[in-house]
Amino acid sequence: MKTILASASPRRRELLTQIGMEFEVRVSNVEEKVTAVEPGQVVEELSRQKAEAVLKAAEESEEVLVIGADTIVVFEGQILGKPSAAEYAVEMLSRMAGNGHEVYTGVTLLYRKHNGAVQRKIFHERTKVAFFPMTETEIRDYVRSGECMDKAGAYGIQGLFARYVRGIEGDYNNVVGLPAGRLYQEAKEWLES
Amino acid sequence: MKTILASASPRRRELLTQIGMEFEVRVSNVEEKVTAVEPGQVVEELSRQKAEAVLKAAEESEEVLVIGADTIVVFEGQILGKPSAAEYAVEMLSRMAGNGHEVYTGVTLLYRKHNGAVQRKIFHERTKVAFFPMTETEIRDYVRSGECMDKAGAYGIQGLFARYVRGIEGDYNNVVGLPAGRLYQEAKEWLES
Repeated sequence: MKTILASASPRRRELLTQIGMEFEVRVSNVEEKVTAVEPGQVVEELSRQKAEAVLKAAEESEEVLVIGADTIVVFEGQILGKPSAAEYAVEMLSRMAGNGHEVYTGVTLLYRKHNGAVQRKIFHERTKVAFFPMTETEIRDYVRSGECMDKAGAYGIQGLFARYVRGIEGDYNNVVGLPAGRLYQEAKEWLES
Repeated sequence: MKTILASASPRRRELLTQIGMEFEVRVSNVEEKVTAVEPGQVVEELSRQKAEAVLKAAEESEEVLVIGADTIVVFEGQILGKPSAAEYAVEMLSRMAGNGHEVYTGVTLLYRKHNGAVQRKIFHERTKVAFFPMTETEIRDYVRSGECMDKAGAYGIQGLFARYVRGIEGDYNNVVGLPAGRLYQEAKEWLES
């Protein structure tokens, strides 16, 4: 059986490697269409679109497990994506500093057997994150480090930003981009088959 | 000012590096004496003994910030240290699997100025950790990986063991060995001086 990660994220790759999984990365350009409104549903929908596109492109004779994932940050009921410019990163962090927010990662697991039958598991995990207060200088220095630019919510919990994280409630790796524990638990019946 | 980490732990070194601190490592062989009983007090006491021993050995003319730390795992009111043999690791994990426990890290910051005056900050952070259930085979396979042998509670949350972690409450890095956020917040007045 071949495991395929349907994501170009280096952090997701590292997490799967950390938990001892062997896999390859395949990314399909899929036009993301969101019909859901509730954050958990949004990330499930997006993770499914990514996974289905990669499964569709895979050879029909392959026995595969495809993993799709999508992560968003929710602050005061608003979804925050990746900042498109440094000024937006400063704005996001200024609002989030000293406060709490939530990170949602949706995961879709698609397991296709040799006979073509597909089994699906779709779920999401939510993690609450609390930040220490930050001065304007700290925010600007952090944004200048560049760490924030490709990350939802404009911070990387596994990087320099750990300075400003007071604590979390839920799965830490979910904030990094993949709920590694839950994912392994859900996938293991297929990994062992 | 020179920052000194009074710990040989590679994980603590990585965490300080992650949050952008420059430091050197100095370890003093100190006979650890615990008079406290409450877990938070125990780790504070041990972190202080390590830091004081390193400060004492440092040249008097040096302006230094010494960081001492100690981490323990508490399960059902009992302190679990590092397993001395594989069979104890299996025993610890068999008890902890499917359950919750607490990780305490105590930190001592000693800041000595040129004039010899010493300022102290001593604190601890507690993080709750919940494990998924594990089969006997999973426990034995994990112990065989060797990851558990030099770690309090016989697991490394930042390694392969992430497979079995359901979630946490508190600072993740505190489980790894150093509450990086709190430490930075407490130390920054001295780091900037």
